[in-house]
Parts: sequence; C-alpha cells; structure tokens
Amino acid sequence: MTQATRPGEITIDLPPSPDAGIYFIGRIRTPFPTLADCPKNPGKGQVEATVEVDERYAAGLEGIEGFSHLIVLYWMDASRRDLIRQWPRVHPAPRGVFSVRSPLRPNPISLAVVELLGVAGATLRIKGIDCRDGTPLVDIKPYHATIDAVPGARRP
Amino acid sequence: MTQATRPGEITIDLPPSPDAGIYFIGRIRTPFPTLADCPKNPGKGQVEATVEVDERYAAGLEGIEGFSHLIVLYWMDASRRDLIRQWPRVHPAPRGVFSVRSPLRPNPISLAVVELLGVAGATLRIKGIDCRDGTPLVDIKPYHATIDAVPGARRP
Repeated sequence: MTQATRPGEITIDLPPSPDAGIYFIGRIRTPFPTLADCPKNPGKGQVEATVEVDERYAAGLEGIEGFSHLIVLYWMDASRRDLIRQWPRVHPAPRGVFSVRSPLRPNPISLAVVELLGVAGATLRIKGIDCRDGTPLVDIKPYHATIDAVPGARRP
Repeated sequence: MTQATRPGEITIDLPPSPDAGIYFIGRIRTPFPTLADCPKNPGKGQVEATVEVDERYAAGLEGIEGFSHLIVLYWMDASRRDLIRQWPRVHPAPRGVFSVRSPLRPNPISLAVVELLGVAGATLRIKGIDCRDGTPLVDIKPYHATIDAVPGARRP
C-alpha cells in the first residue's frame, strides 16, 4: 500500500477485515519471472503457460480435456487493493476500477479466457495468460460459447 | 458441509485456513428469493437484475456506462466447497468440479457475462444473472470481445 498514485487516481479505505476466504488451489507457471517481465497489453502475450493444480484438487480436472477453452481465475498477490480510480498507461484518462481490467482492484482476481492445449496429470498446458510465474490459481471453469461469447460486445 | 453426496461424487478435506481474503463489494438483487427459486439452466434465465455496489466502492464505476457487456463475479455463499467430483442434474455422469460451472467449488466464485442495460448512481441494471437475491458481489470487469469472446470454442 505504499505505491504512489498517479494524477487523477483516488484511493479508498478498505474494510478492516475480509468477508470470505480464498484457497490457492495451484500455481500458474509462465516465462515471466517478475511483474516487470509481463507483457503490458493483455491478450497480446499469447505465450504458452502451464497451470499446476495442487494434488488435493487434482480429481477436479476429470473431464476437462473435452473443452477447447477454459476460464482461469488467479490471484494477483502483489497488487494494491485500494485504488478505486486509476490511470492505466494504456488509457487516455483515469477511470473507475470496474471499467478497467487492471490487476489492482478491491478483490485482485484476474480472469483469462485461455486455449487448452493439453492435460498431463494435474498440469494443464494453455495459451493466453501472461501473469508472473508462480501466480496463485483460484479457479478453473469450462468456457461455454453459448453463454460466455459475445463477439459483438461494444466498448467505448 | 452436511449435504449428502450423490452416487459417484467425491469430497476432499479442505485446507485448515484460507490463503487470501475477499471483500464483498455489493449485492446482486434478483427476483429469486431462495436457491430453490433460481432457474436450473444457467444462461436461460435472462431476467433483469440489479447490481448494487456499496458506497465505499461507487467511484469505481466511472466509465462503465460505455460498455455493452460486463463480467460479474459473485460469491455463492450457501455452497459447500469440498465436492471435487460432482454430478449436476444436467449432466449424464459425474465430472470433476473444474469441468462444470456448478457453484459448489473450492472457491465458490460464480461468473456471468451480462448485458448492461443502465447505470443509476451505484446501481447497475443488467440482464443475465439468475442467482439468489442478495448474493454477495465480488468484482465487475468490462467485457472485451477481443480477448473474452471465443464463439467457436468446443465442448464435449
């Protein structure tokens, strides 16, 4: 919480305690050892990565090989959580946190739609995540084009 | 954790304590007072609902009105978390939790791609969520067709 804010950015006081708890269920392995190594434009870094699911949760992968794409949720553990209005470098002006995909958010859960390339034991080979190596895994969901794909969605 | 499992279902021991904390940032208001009232087929219940963001986080909505669709993350607070292999009624056979969209998962975060119908103060009018009225809100993200829409994604 010591990072300085940029002009136009606003911070809030967070609640004194959380309302619910997250288990880290595995790790995401990428070619990017630190945040500074990660690509700046999400979606552009179509490198291969692996998702390593902890043994405790490995049985949960049964049947996943039938899907071409997955939704992966992961925890951006190095992100401050109090920056409610922020100015990511890729945007022309500051914006509310809920209209950007920045990892800095009250609940720093990032989401990526990834292509599933292969499954070996409790390890998934994927394409489409460019987070720091070792990033904690929160969830994996099957991607359903019927409810998740809106190719005509508009943005400003 | 007292719900009986169905044939073919498997439970695991969860870790003794969570790894990270979630703040509930608002509530989702729907026409479904209890879980039993919610539609059984996700995506079929295209009712209108509202997302009420707590005042503390309201500034985070700036700029959101420019998006036609959002990704909403919410906490299924009535869901057991230990059912690693499960048999949802809509499936022909049991499957691992990570290949179903069931709310019963180690981290019971559900995800919906919703249409944004309007914004009034800290309340969003949306279409596309059919959870129980009062469900805790975890995050709102803008939907980007370029990275989130895969209309040709295959499923078994």
